[in-house]
Amino acid sequence: MNNLELYLQQFEQAFNQKHFPEHTPTLYNAASHILTIKGKRLRPVAIYLAHSLFDTVNDDTYNAGAAVELFHNFTLIHDDIMDKAPIRRGKPTVHNLYGENTALLAGDVVFVKAYEYLSKISQPYLGRCIELFNKTAAEVCEGQQLDMDFETKETVSYNDYVTMISLKTSVLVAASLQLGAILGGASLGNQQHLYEFGKNLGIAFQVQDDYLDAFGDPAITGKQAGGDILANKKTFLMVHTQEVANASQTAALNSLMQSNADNKVEAVLQIFKETKADAWAADLKEKYYQEAMRHLEEVAVLNERKADLLSFAQSLIHRAF
Amino acid sequence: MNNLELYLQQFEQAFNQKHFPEHTPTLYNAASHILTIKGKRLRPVAIYLAHSLFDTVNDDTYNAGAAVELFHNFTLIHDDIMDKAPIRRGKPTVHNLYGENTALLAGDVVFVKAYEYLSKISQPYLGRCIELFNKTAAEVCEGQQLDMDFETKETVSYNDYVTMISLKTSVLVAASLQLGAILGGASLGNQQHLYEFGKNLGIAFQVQDDYLDAFGDPAITGKQAGGDILANKKTFLMVHTQEVANASQTAALNSLMQSNADNKVEAVLQIFKETKADAWAADLKEKYYQEAMRHLEEVAVLNERKADLLSFAQSLIHRAF
Repeated sequence: MNNLELYLQQFEQAFNQKHFPEHTPTLYNAASHILTIKGKRLRPVAIYLAHSLFDTVNDDTYNAGAAVELFHNFTLIHDDIMDKAPIRRGKPTVHNLYGENTALLAGDVVFVKAYEYLSKISQPYLGRCIELFNKTAAEVCEGQQLDMDFETKETVSYNDYVTMISLKTSVLVAASLQLGAILGGASLGNQQHLYEFGKNLGIAFQVQDDYLDAFGDPAITGKQAGGDILANKKTFLMVHTQEVANASQTAALNSLMQSNADNKVEAVLQIFKETKADAWAADLKEKYYQEAMRHLEEVAVLNERKADLLSFAQSLIHRAF
Repeated sequence: MNNLELYLQQFEQAFNQKHFPEHTPTLYNAASHILTIKGKRLRPVAIYLAHSLFDTVNDDTYNAGAAVELFHNFTLIHDDIMDKAPIRRGKPTVHNLYGENTALLAGDVVFVKAYEYLSKISQPYLGRCIELFNKTAAEVCEGQQLDMDFETKETVSYNDYVTMISLKTSVLVAASLQLGAILGGASLGNQQHLYEFGKNLGIAFQVQDDYLDAFGDPAITGKQAGGDILANKKTFLMVHTQEVANASQTAALNSLMQSNADNKVEAVLQIFKETKADAWAADLKEKYYQEAMRHLEEVAVLNERKADLLSFAQSLIHRAF
């Protein structure tokens, strides 16, 4: 078992418990449901890995991990309400099972629970962890709002899209790494390099996610091919294509986005290829991945200690599409 | 100017500022809107009064006050979404102006902002303040859920109703007083008496609120007479009447609750009077008020120092209906 699996197991063993009281089951059954839709626990594992880079993990690592995982689950409950999503990871979403009002409130109480774990972090780390957590929580809300704002816009600039993606998904991975670094007693410089490592890795992951949705093999990704295209979603590919397309490609794209033609996915993919958005995305992912690596290299600990974080990055990012 | 007005002014002067950044206006304009629907700032004033009972108020008092006021406003945004309420205090609600999705997210970010202020509280008080705040925040969510659960029930027991009201409205007033006591360096015993003072006062206030909705003069209360009756809302009066009504009164009440007859309010009020629910409510309010007073008396400081908290209680509760 490598350290990634070890820390995942360590976190899961502690986290796999009842987090909520017996009373008010109408509220807490809904809140508990989201925790049965298990994710990869990426963010807690990132905290353990960053902490272990500097010092031995301890109860604070778990408490920070639980706080970030619960925060992430709170955002999933509320995002699913906003997106009217019936299913997440093959299971019914909270509002699908319990109604929107209870889901809204269940999200709130999962958020409170996140703060309960966070506030168990010991001194002298507590203050800095709360400050980073609060900043990040606000940014994640901003990212979700920007994502909703973009839905009503015909085009979004590449810069605005990167800002949104950073806020909505990358900053929480970045903050997880910094939380671990804080708990490990790292210098501010090392904390910041780990933050930037996580932020760039998160963006590289999202570029890859957008690419695979369009060009991935559904048998491997487990997702409907071109799901983003069918939903007219802004993605790295779409945003770039809209920026570089010529007049006829733009016209074709606009017409396709207003249609539900059988060949919609195929036709949009064709335009992506014509504008070389596929190659551009592969380069972009590599650029962000390399930037993440640069920051990991800058962290002032022996290189051999960084092997686990390198494996973490590699497990997230397939180096060849 | 008495101390209540002084502390209100002191809080308002500090709180009347921009709490949110310029960027992401689609999110932060919605979040800011709730703060333009000004309430009475009861909870911050309670913190100032409790703190000043033991020591001079300071920056911590303000930060705790801002945290509790923002938390209260977060619950208003989400409650208004759940209740589909278009108007609050004569102004459009957040979701009415900005849509449900943005309102949901604006509520979340106001909650984050509450924690930002809370985490500014200095050591050694921070830990105990956060613990109390988290416990209270979860309870307020539980109270809101119970309130929603009750909507679908034909009858609710008096005990269950008191539990719901305590959680939904009283514990935040109680916690505000305890927060002030913690910041003032009060003993745990004194903290608990102030908590119970606030909790009982909050329940007395709610009994009064329910009574005035039914029997108050609309010219004085500023509310539609019998609004709760028209909405078939569970109230202290309704819950008690359903418990003590005889068979014919119960039948009449059930039939009225399924009707929208012109005389609905008048007829329900008649049953309230027949079952003496009006006198019962007046006694009940007095009972909770006296229990609040008993706890205030138990606080181990000179009686003359308690004058402001007594005025606070009196300003909330009219001793004669």
